[in-house]
Amino acid sequence: MHSSGDKADKQKSANMNKGLMSVLLVLVAISSSWGKPDKPQMKKEKRVPQTLSRGWGDELIWTQTYEEALFRSQTTQKPLMVIFHLEECPHSLALKNAFANNKEIQKLADEDFIILNLVFETTDKHLYPDGQYVPRIIFVDPSLTVRADITGRYANRMYAYEPSDMNLLLSNMQKAKKLLKTEL
Amino acid sequence: MHSSGDKADKQKSANMNKGLMSVLLVLVAISSSWGKPDKPQMKKEKRVPQTLSRGWGDELIWTQTYEEALFRSQTTQKPLMVIFHLEECPHSLALKNAFANNKEIQKLADEDFIILNLVFETTDKHLYPDGQYVPRIIFVDPSLTVRADITGRYANRMYAYEPSDMNLLLSNMQKAKKLLKTEL
Repeated sequence: MHSSGDKADKQKSANMNKGLMSVLLVLVAISSSWGKPDKPQMKKEKRVPQTLSRGWGDELIWTQTYEEALFRSQTTQKPLMVIFHLEECPHSLALKNAFANNKEIQKLADEDFIILNLVFETTDKHLYPDGQYVPRIIFVDPSLTVRADITGRYANRMYAYEPSDMNLLLSNMQKAKKLLKTEL
Repeated sequence: MHSSGDKADKQKSANMNKGLMSVLLVLVAISSSWGKPDKPQMKKEKRVPQTLSRGWGDELIWTQTYEEALFRSQTTQKPLMVIFHLEECPHSLALKNAFANNKEIQKLADEDFIILNLVFETTDKHLYPDGQYVPRIIFVDPSLTVRADITGRYANRMYAYEPSDMNLLLSNMQKAKKLLKTEL
């Protein structure tokens, strides 16, 4: 059934994953929030369930993983918006606050986008066209093409937004809604 | 800055992702729950935020993605338990109910495991040693080796569990806690 003969295969998996780890470390190194789950918890203190929204819009329907998001984008023909952030990064928190409280953005995201917010990088390098920083927002067309052309206003961090950039973000969302419709 | 010269690269991404799609379709084909987010929602009906636990233990600390889970497993040296399920699959629901209400399992999962529950397949084929069915539970050692040797009691679906299998699952969790500690 499950012979141990596939040890080499498992080793390959391990090696693959070690490559993956080094990519992941880049983002995680910035964050100081990782210790959290390991701290001894007060016994019997009721924990609040973590949400997929992580505060970016509790009433929106968030996808959990990039794979799920890609699938839903393709099947619904809605563009995907991926938000990379970290829970203890002040720039991320400021952007989240502006994003969650902007009714126009929330409505547009709800109706016309597949949305995903991640505190961890994926293995798809197309999601970091100019580096793995947070916060950053990347759009993906339902044709599964990363919209590297939809950028914010910072030349050195092209996919970063600040709270004062909400109108630019809105206009970028409108841009992303115009699908590429490349012939397949 | 972001010249359109990388079209070939983007195309490569699209092709890669199309390969990914076919893998994902296998699992999704079983599920009838995908229509949900597209159904017209009653306006002004307050939505409840989705949780990462998805009902498998609201007080546990769930990771969001496989990448995050692997990283945390490696850094904490705790084994990873990945639960694949679907929200509208009666077998998944029955197992979830047994899992969430078993105090011993909840305690062990909380204290000694990195935990992840997914309604979508990942791209790591080592996570489906004998197919992409639900529910199934796969353990991964902190050395990033998938523990294909830790199985349930069904020869045709080796990583499936039923509500009556909670003692077997507990003993498998104990087994997973004995780390491989392979020399690197």
